[in-house]
Amino acid sequence: MLSTLIELQRLKNLDRTGWTLRGLPNGTESVAAHSFGVSVTAMLLADKFKAHGVSVDVEKVLRIALLHDWAEARVGDMPRTATLYFGSEARKQAEMAAFSDVVSEVDAAKGLYANLYNDYEHRSSLEARLVKAADVLDLLVQVLALERAGARGLDEFWEVAEKPEFNLEGAAEQIVRELLDSILKARSEFT
Amino acid sequence: MLSTLIELQRLKNLDRTGWTLRGLPNGTESVAAHSFGVSVTAMLLADKFKAHGVSVDVEKVLRIALLHDWAEARVGDMPRTATLYFGSEARKQAEMAAFSDVVSEVDAAKGLYANLYNDYEHRSSLEARLVKAADVLDLLVQVLALERAGARGLDEFWEVAEKPEFNLEGAAEQIVRELLDSILKARSEFT
Amino acid sequence: MLSTLIELQRLKNLDRTGWTLRGLPNGTESVAAHSFGVSVTAMLLADKFKAHGVSVDVEKVLRIALLHDWAEARVGDMPRTATLYFGSEARKQAEMAAFSDVVSEVDAAKGLYANLYNDYEHRSSLEARLVKAADVLDLLVQVLALERAGARGLDEFWEVAEKPEFNLEGAAEQIVRELLDSILKARSEFT
Amino acid sequence: MLSTLIELQRLKNLDRTGWTLRGLPNGTESVAAHSFGVSVTAMLLADKFKAHGVSVDVEKVLRIALLHDWAEARVGDMPRTATLYFGSEARKQAEMAAFSDVVSEVDAAKGLYANLYNDYEHRSSLEARLVKAADVLDLLVQVLALERAGARGLDEFWEVAEKPEFNLEGAAEQIVRELLDSILKARSEFT
Amino acid sequence: MLSTLIELQRLKNLDRTGWTLRGLPNGTESVAAHSFGVSVTAMLLADKFKAHGVSVDVEKVLRIALLHDWAEARVGDMPRTATLYFGSEARKQAEMAAFSDVVSEVDAAKGLYANLYNDYEHRSSLEARLVKAADVLDLLVQVLALERAGARGLDEFWEVAEKPEFNLEGAAEQIVRELLDSILKARSEFT
Amino acid sequence: MLSTLIELQRLKNLDRTGWTLRGLPNGTESVAAHSFGVSVTAMLLADKFKAHGVSVDVEKVLRIALLHDWAEARVGDMPRTATLYFGSEARKQAEMAAFSDVVSEVDAAKGLYANLYNDYEHRSSLEARLVKAADVLDLLVQVLALERAGARGLDEFWEVAEKPEFNLEGAAEQIVRELLDSILKARSEFT
Repeated sequence: MLSTLIELQRLKNLDRTGWTLRGLPNGTESVAAHSFGVSVTAMLLADKFKAHGVSVDVEKVLRIALLHDWAEARVGDMPRTATLYFGSEARKQAEMAAFSDVVSEVDAAKGLYANLYNDYEHRSSLEARLVKAADVLDLLVQVLALERAGARGLDEFWEVAEKPEFNLEGAAEQIVRELLDSILKARSEFT
Repeated sequence: MLSTLIELQRLKNLDRTGWTLRGLPNGTESVAAHSFGVSVTAMLLADKFKAHGVSVDVEKVLRIALLHDWAEARVGDMPRTATLYFGSEARKQAEMAAFSDVVSEVDAAKGLYANLYNDYEHRSSLEARLVKAADVLDLLVQVLALERAGARGLDEFWEVAEKPEFNLEGAAEQIVRELLDSILKARSEFT
Repeated sequence: MLSTLIELQRLKNLDRTGWTLRGLPNGTESVAAHSFGVSVTAMLLADKFKAHGVSVDVEKVLRIALLHDWAEARVGDMPRTATLYFGSEARKQAEMAAFSDVVSEVDAAKGLYANLYNDYEHRSSLEARLVKAADVLDLLVQVLALERAGARGLDEFWEVAEKPEFNLEGAAEQIVRELLDSILKARSEFT
Repeated sequence: MLSTLIELQRLKNLDRTGWTLRGLPNGTESVAAHSFGVSVTAMLLADKFKAHGVSVDVEKVLRIALLHDWAEARVGDMPRTATLYFGSEARKQAEMAAFSDVVSEVDAAKGLYANLYNDYEHRSSLEARLVKAADVLDLLVQVLALERAGARGLDEFWEVAEKPEFNLEGAAEQIVRELLDSILKARSEFT
Repeated sequence: MLSTLIELQRLKNLDRTGWTLRGLPNGTESVAAHSFGVSVTAMLLADKFKAHGVSVDVEKVLRIALLHDWAEARVGDMPRTATLYFGSEARKQAEMAAFSDVVSEVDAAKGLYANLYNDYEHRSSLEARLVKAADVLDLLVQVLALERAGARGLDEFWEVAEKPEFNLEGAAEQIVRELLDSILKARSEFT
Repeated sequence: MLSTLIELQRLKNLDRTGWTLRGLPNGTESVAAHSFGVSVTAMLLADKFKAHGVSVDVEKVLRIALLHDWAEARVGDMPRTATLYFGSEARKQAEMAAFSDVVSEVDAAKGLYANLYNDYEHRSSLEARLVKAADVLDLLVQVLALERAGARGLDEFWEVAEKPEFNLEGAAEQIVRELLDSILKARSEFT
């Protein structure tokens, strides 16, 4: 179990390449800090879903959010453009294999973790789609914070907000879109 | 809900003062990265507890782990020595009040969050004690990683390992102590 | 005496949390760098006071400026919001106690230092009020420099400039306000 | 041509993941700084080759050294472990395709650049093998510098020095091995 | 030869003072990263010169580009204003002497390197003037990248673009000016 | 007066090149942070001098300590080796001229500041020599702190401690040497 913790420790100072490739300073955001942001966003969303009658397994949500980037300890934080050259299918398979190796020393629950990771990659469950929405929303809140602090040149990150594909339904979809709208509104107030 | 997310975003580049006050570079570890480490450690511990017959509410564990440092968005990451001057009771009350204000805009579950935070501060439940153990263990794995990378002058962090007070029982206590022992053993291999 | 110097050395890479909590990079300004800025500003102000006939003890001014943030070596650079939760009186008492411990190994002049610190905290003398003005002005010049370099989201720091309370008199008050006005004018030229 | 220069500009603050994944601070070495080191090392080696009668095309050497990491502007600095999961052949093809796109706007010499890149990837020429040797040697001199400054935990980088495979011949092989030996000797003096 | 490589290694984390003195974060650009940028720009320019019938010695171009800042390992990256106080002749002589000492342990080609450095300092050849143009253009592309990412206060760097003195001729001058114009045009699109 | 403050602001993130040229991270210590350390050390020394019957003008000490590095805002923090190439006399003259320009907008006391700077450069007074001693001692306490945190390769900084030339007398010399000895003793305890 220790070897897994040591390996995941690496995510604490692995830079998210989205920022450094656009000229922002090293240390802008680590993969671990992003995973924290996704997990927190997912928890708040899940609780709002429940308050509006959407049944959701919060434990599952939080598990997926916490583990969805573990493969990066072995393959790094590949920029989006990398997917063009490797192909998204090859990338998924490589990350799945890397994930399996990261958790190989975890006796208790490695099968569970692999299933959750697989679920996330295929967006098979409501919980997986919720975490994906949280992943997008945490990214946008980060961009918002960076832009408020003076960063520019990040317009392309907002393109995802034009045609969002959360693939949720009913109240869930509405809650996520309302949050997205409030992010866009907050941005419009200073640009 | 957005105002809460924006505020928690701040934890992503709030330095843990334990490192900077000891001469390590700015950016060594953010509060958000630490919270991620605690959450991951707590999940792995909880699953091992369950595998050894200890009944534990994993959802509650993950919720507590994710929110236990939110107050720092308003009071900062106070160094340990600060507690000597404010008093631990005053510090707890201030952080409880700060926590309440951080979540005040979260309609759905702010009562739940406050209860979980309160539970953690008083170590009222097994889940709270498990997260506190994860908090200590993530700190030690971070120290281990820093020392492996060449950092020195961090001996005082290891004192907690001499008389650990996890206040767990049976298999739970044993699992945590075994992990602590494996950390100490890993350290002995390069010092 | 060495133990005090070692402890004050810590201020050299303790980040001012005002910047990191607003999304600026780690390492933007250390407490030591700020203390240098305050001391330099205080010296220039004091010399201008004297040139305009205001009697001021420059040695006392410089001593206060250099030592006014020493307590942060033990309590950290608490963000402003922290004062809301601890209360300003508790914060002052804690910092006074921390300051006393920082200088406890200084045989020669620890009583003198404690008196000067106390004087500063209560703004008892002209010299203390001059240093407080320098503290505000160095902050604003730093914000000006950051904004010139592209930083944004720092508007709240300028609020202090709307109703400044320097509590000085005659030529002293006028000199400080003229400097404040020139800062505001410099800012207006690029915003 | 400008679009290519802007894209290569990104390499100036893209961190080499080998360091950050091992706990060294963000900003330890950029891909651009490494490429500079490789180019300089290659020039010095090539001139020594020539002085010892080995015929080598220095222009070709420098061209290859300067361009050998350009693909990383699109695929990032993938850690070594990533190759295990993608396969070295897939990685090579992806990087070749990324390289082609990076230089697609360069009218004058894009065919030449692609040929040189291809040559390097297949180690087809003496010049390509010389640059590969310089790539390894710059890495080791960097590790040496980091270890001298106190970094630890970098032992695995030295494994390459145990069974070096430069695939050079005669005086060329000897010159490279002598430099390698002098690096190892310099290391032995402080460990 | 190793002592030279170790010394040049220092350029990898020597900050360009032009940025830090204007309030940009430490680590914005190292001297090594800049030298990489100049070398790459020089290669692309040289190949375009050749495509337009200008005869140019590319090997010489790349050698000069790679070594033109080596003296900074001993004298640092002096800000422009420093030249006002030392005098440009004294600065040149000091850097020439520092350069000679940097390469003093390089048996094979130190005379060649000194000649190339001398050539560059006096802009004696087309190749030297081409590298100087690349030095200016890489600076402007870096400023462009920083401004796109939100940096401000860098206007003075653009003054060089108003009355450029490349001292090239015919097609060479035209190619360089076209690149300069495209940089200015790219800047006009976001300011 | 504002233009001077803005210019001195630059010292807050101008790196001391002694660290970065030896492979320590950017941001290790700014010139402003060092000036703070020197000023604080000088104040403590001066007060100890007085307690032992040595008459010293503390105001003068603090003024010199605060302003002794202002010229670096225009000439940068030149590494020691730079002096070899420029000559120490030329360096002094350049820095004196830069200093004069930095304070040229300060009406009140620019003559006084120039005299104090001149005094420091020539070590004309006890106060100047005291500040020079503080400059050396703050450097060594910084090295001590870096080494405690794991930094290595800084041995050459300790050479100054072997044949210190403080040029003080009687109790003053003894106090400074005792502090030096206590620094050396502290170092011997962990190396």
